Amino acid sequence: MSLTPHTPHPSSFNTIAIVGKHMAGGIAKSLTDIADCLGSTGRKVIFEAETALNFSLTDYDAMTLPEIGECADAAIVVGGDGTMLGIARQLAPYNVPLIGVNQGRLGFMTDISLDQMMPLLKEMLSGKVRSEQRTLLKGSIEREGEPMYSTLAFNDVVLSRGSGAGMVELRVEVDGHFMYNQRSDGLIVATPTGSSAYALSAGGPILHPSLTGIGLVPIAPHALSNRPIVVPDSSVIVIEVMSGRNASVNFDMQSVARLLKHDRITVQRSEHTITFLHPEGWNYYDTLREKLHWNEYPSVEGRLK
Amino acid sequence: MSLTPHTPHPSSFNTIAIVGKHMAGGIAKSLTDIADCLGSTGRKVIFEAETALNFSLTDYDAMTLPEIGECADAAIVVGGDGTMLGIARQLAPYNVPLIGVNQGRLGFMTDISLDQMMPLLKEMLSGKVRSEQRTLLKGSIEREGEPMYSTLAFNDVVLSRGSGAGMVELRVEVDGHFMYNQRSDGLIVATPTGSSAYALSAGGPILHPSLTGIGLVPIAPHALSNRPIVVPDSSVIVIEVMSGRNASVNFDMQSVARLLKHDRITVQRSEHTITFLHPEGWNYYDTLREKLHWNEYPSVEGRLK
Amino acid sequence: MSLTPHTPHPSSFNTIAIVGKHMAGGIAKSLTDIADCLGSTGRKVIFEAETALNFSLTDYDAMTLPEIGECADAAIVVGGDGTMLGIARQLAPYNVPLIGVNQGRLGFMTDISLDQMMPLLKEMLSGKVRSEQRTLLKGSIEREGEPMYSTLAFNDVVLSRGSGAGMVELRVEVDGHFMYNQRSDGLIVATPTGSSAYALSAGGPILHPSLTGIGLVPIAPHALSNRPIVVPDSSVIVIEVMSGRNASVNFDMQSVARLLKHDRITVQRSEHTITFLHPEGWNYYDTLREKLHWNEYPSVEGRLK
Amino acid sequence: MSLTPHTPHPSSFNTIAIVGKHMAGGIAKSLTDIADCLGSTGRKVIFEAETALNFSLTDYDAMTLPEIGECADAAIVVGGDGTMLGIARQLAPYNVPLIGVNQGRLGFMTDISLDQMMPLLKEMLSGKVRSEQRTLLKGSIEREGEPMYSTLAFNDVVLSRGSGAGMVELRVEVDGHFMYNQRSDGLIVATPTGSSAYALSAGGPILHPSLTGIGLVPIAPHALSNRPIVVPDSSVIVIEVMSGRNASVNFDMQSVARLLKHDRITVQRSEHTITFLHPEGWNYYDTLREKLHWNEYPSVEGRLK
Repeated sequence: MSLTPHTPHPSSFNTIAIVGKHMAGGIAKSLTDIADCLGSTGRKVIFEAETALNFSLTDYDAMTLPEIGECADAAIVVGGDGTMLGIARQLAPYNVPLIGVNQGRLGFMTDISLDQMMPLLKEMLSGKVRSEQRTLLKGSIEREGEPMYSTLAFNDVVLSRGSGAGMVELRVEVDGHFMYNQRSDGLIVATPTGSSAYALSAGGPILHPSLTGIGLVPIAPHALSNRPIVVPDSSVIVIEVMSGRNASVNFDMQSVARLLKHDRITVQRSEHTITFLHPEGWNYYDTLREKLHWNEYPSVEGRLK
Repeated sequence: MSLTPHTPHPSSFNTIAIVGKHMAGGIAKSLTDIADCLGSTGRKVIFEAETALNFSLTDYDAMTLPEIGECADAAIVVGGDGTMLGIARQLAPYNVPLIGVNQGRLGFMTDISLDQMMPLLKEMLSGKVRSEQRTLLKGSIEREGEPMYSTLAFNDVVLSRGSGAGMVELRVEVDGHFMYNQRSDGLIVATPTGSSAYALSAGGPILHPSLTGIGLVPIAPHALSNRPIVVPDSSVIVIEVMSGRNASVNFDMQSVARLLKHDRITVQRSEHTITFLHPEGWNYYDTLREKLHWNEYPSVEGRLK
Repeated sequence: MSLTPHTPHPSSFNTIAIVGKHMAGGIAKSLTDIADCLGSTGRKVIFEAETALNFSLTDYDAMTLPEIGECADAAIVVGGDGTMLGIARQLAPYNVPLIGVNQGRLGFMTDISLDQMMPLLKEMLSGKVRSEQRTLLKGSIEREGEPMYSTLAFNDVVLSRGSGAGMVELRVEVDGHFMYNQRSDGLIVATPTGSSAYALSAGGPILHPSLTGIGLVPIAPHALSNRPIVVPDSSVIVIEVMSGRNASVNFDMQSVARLLKHDRITVQRSEHTITFLHPEGWNYYDTLREKLHWNEYPSVEGRLK
Repeated sequence: MSLTPHTPHPSSFNTIAIVGKHMAGGIAKSLTDIADCLGSTGRKVIFEAETALNFSLTDYDAMTLPEIGECADAAIVVGGDGTMLGIARQLAPYNVPLIGVNQGRLGFMTDISLDQMMPLLKEMLSGKVRSEQRTLLKGSIEREGEPMYSTLAFNDVVLSRGSGAGMVELRVEVDGHFMYNQRSDGLIVATPTGSSAYALSAGGPILHPSLTGIGLVPIAPHALSNRPIVVPDSSVIVIEVMSGRNASVNFDMQSVARLLKHDRITVQRSEHTITFLHPEGWNYYDTLREKLHWNEYPSVEGRLK
């Protein structure tokens, strides 16, 4: 077992929460099966409140995410990476290890398929587990020197131009030092977790989850030399809106604020981290290879002699 | 002289219009000098109405762009590429050849610098001229089968996601044939003229102005294999919005319409073209090399042995 | 039927050649089946000489490719795109229409699968056919003013740096006009056919086969602004080696010549073209979508709200 | 002053070596001036042996690089980044801090211009200095299980296809775990220092020098999803040649070995590091901005409204 120092041994997980993707039909039985399985080992099972409500699950206690954060030793999240993204961000302050279960399609963060769940879960709870820690970003907005808003992002903080507007011009500072003024459709500040999401679409590199770096990926930059850059994750990144009508910032594509000229967004690594528990033998490169169809991907013909 | 068949010899240009960039301080004298120079050769000089108003030019007739389109044998546009873009699009239906004059910074379309203007202009009007024809796009929006809006674009027609929204999903058809569904920040449909503008920022190729092609350049596409594609300019491209809140379309970044699901945008080559007149010896590659700083551009060190 | 003016009606194809991929086990029976089918319609069938030899096909006449070029009204090529590439280039001077048959994996040029071959072939020979013409490049090498070598390329002409050497420096001229000096790993000059091959790997755009353009795609260029450019296929492109040990040029990855400083390679559209015959209903975008896995391709998660 | 723990205070630098770029005309006087200036402060000055020979510098002792490594407290390198690259790699085992002086053109590693050298040098030696540590790679080649060759690389280890050959196929393992088989022109394994060199040309991200990461950047990869990836610099990367005639590996473009099928190249962070001394106030982003012409770079026109 390779657990981080902070993670207790899974056999001591007495209270386990279960969260299901809202709107996902047909998983009620799976959620109950998992709950029963866990319950049969003498563990206390909690359903996340909205999950319980949506799927009419009344056999176990229901709690809100903050309550789960306080009580649970681990949480099982059933859904896609999008579901996990939201739950992980909300549970981040509580340091609850997460187990991701997908409904058929492998995710970067939901790496266990529902139909393999039961045996794998038992093994994992017996200690055959691989623990992995991920960083989050903390983003805050300041207007005229006053803090306006602050939140966490697990994938990315994205500054972008207004719809139907021309480019946004952004002034970027790192650790108090001027980096550049950038004119573009926007700028993505991504964690390693987010590097395989929007940032990848925009031409950014893939960052291994254990890399202690943050990616800055411009979207359709005006200057062809404005290439993606990876900075140490100890960096404090300040982005000031210099021009651009209706520019906005969002965090994991969730929260959106309309920005004014000279608004400043500060992005840095959060003091929180997220712990994922994977089955023993899990490896990031396997996931990456499958998600990106490496070795199967459409060929560019006529090159091999 | 290499003129296209449709362009009369410059020595027969009897009426010449002058258009200046609005808000550009300090060019009133230059505009007057050009006018006086042309007037001294017995030609009729017209100022574009807003230009005349802005710069208080009262020595010559003032006309609106449509009037200029009807009367003028050629038009001289003083400003940057942005100014030329707008004027060219408005004059496109009238087939008036255009001469582009920049105010110090070489443009793709405004290739004559103001301080070389007078001698070059005389030479050009004597026939030492290179004529070049450029294509435009015609874009139209259809909602529930009804035409809503139609306009010309000289650079590009751009579909893009709403601000703060996730990706837009677009269904693209070419010549009645399904090409793909694309999820992205948007799709740029660019003329060769537009290929060195926004489309280049988004990773598109440069298209030589005389290439009879249209570029389709996705912006931060979800699928890594959604690469830029160049289709013949005889193609009829239909883009349907499949999903995406607040998606919009714009034409040369000027006109904007908020789109609804299933709105269809048709893009095709306009029947109009734009004729630029350049000084003899002008060559597109010279402009490209200077604009893109080829041969001067920052080096990637340590490779040459 | 949409045939080009030069292509006679398929029902008048009296002599049809069959070419099989060398080294492809298990297709002897297929080749014979095709031959018998064609023979049964009263047509004369010819096997390409090496195909006949490799697969011990003795029931029909065997001819070399030049002989086929002289005699055949059409040729059926069984194999992958690589096989077709070579055969098409060799038959290009003879203007023999080609039908491409793959052995299970869809090709850009070999679009008929072997198991659908028989019914489709009958339909095509009855006139239910779509004809398409493709351009080739003619490349020639000149040393100290003397022509050294000249050949055709259907995909691309590629200049590249020597193995283990630093960058090559190339001086590029188009239509006698200086374009730029480029330092890079090399330069790919690609037909539309070749645009989905090596040029795509190197970041070039996809060019529709009927686009009258040639792509110039630098490989790992030193200057970040050295982007792919598409020029009209009437262009004469001259590339001079300015520096770089052991630079080489190849044509469809087949012929290779080691280059010296100041060697000049001239690339232009060949006077020959290649005619492909496709089943009625064939469309390039269908092939492209399938080959590039559009609409199936691995997703970048977490973006849709 | 921000020195790393290992670096003694510059005021205690008693012995300082000077290295000049071979073949660089006109710097003999500069080298002597620096030497005299240092000598006048009571320090011992050493010229690197080839430097002394090339420029006929006989007033000070001459030593080979290994001798300098043993004796010198710091070394001043006058030349471009290429010169620094080679010297730094050779001195890496000795842990001698380096000061980089360029001859007019700012370098990433040679950040002091010759004409500002004298005052800056005095300030630096008085302690107004910024120290920065850089990582190197150790690369080794194994054939049939036997070690063949091992060396350091400061920029990159590059596997590449043979000249005139098709793609190379490489099997990549990280930390004993299979990553992928890649078909491409080659693979660049780059330090942060090398990220702004060849790797940038090939589409890789810029890595801040203090990022503890290694970039893997494929060159013209066959699969469009083979994107650059950054792994922690604790990774052990093993690359096996699966196919490809005449593939080769080189280290900082210096050493070259022709590879055979199944040769394995192991790349990992070296136990050595390189310490650069910069003037106080030096910042990587300033260098980056100037080298990449950010904020000056050619514009993509017509986007701002």
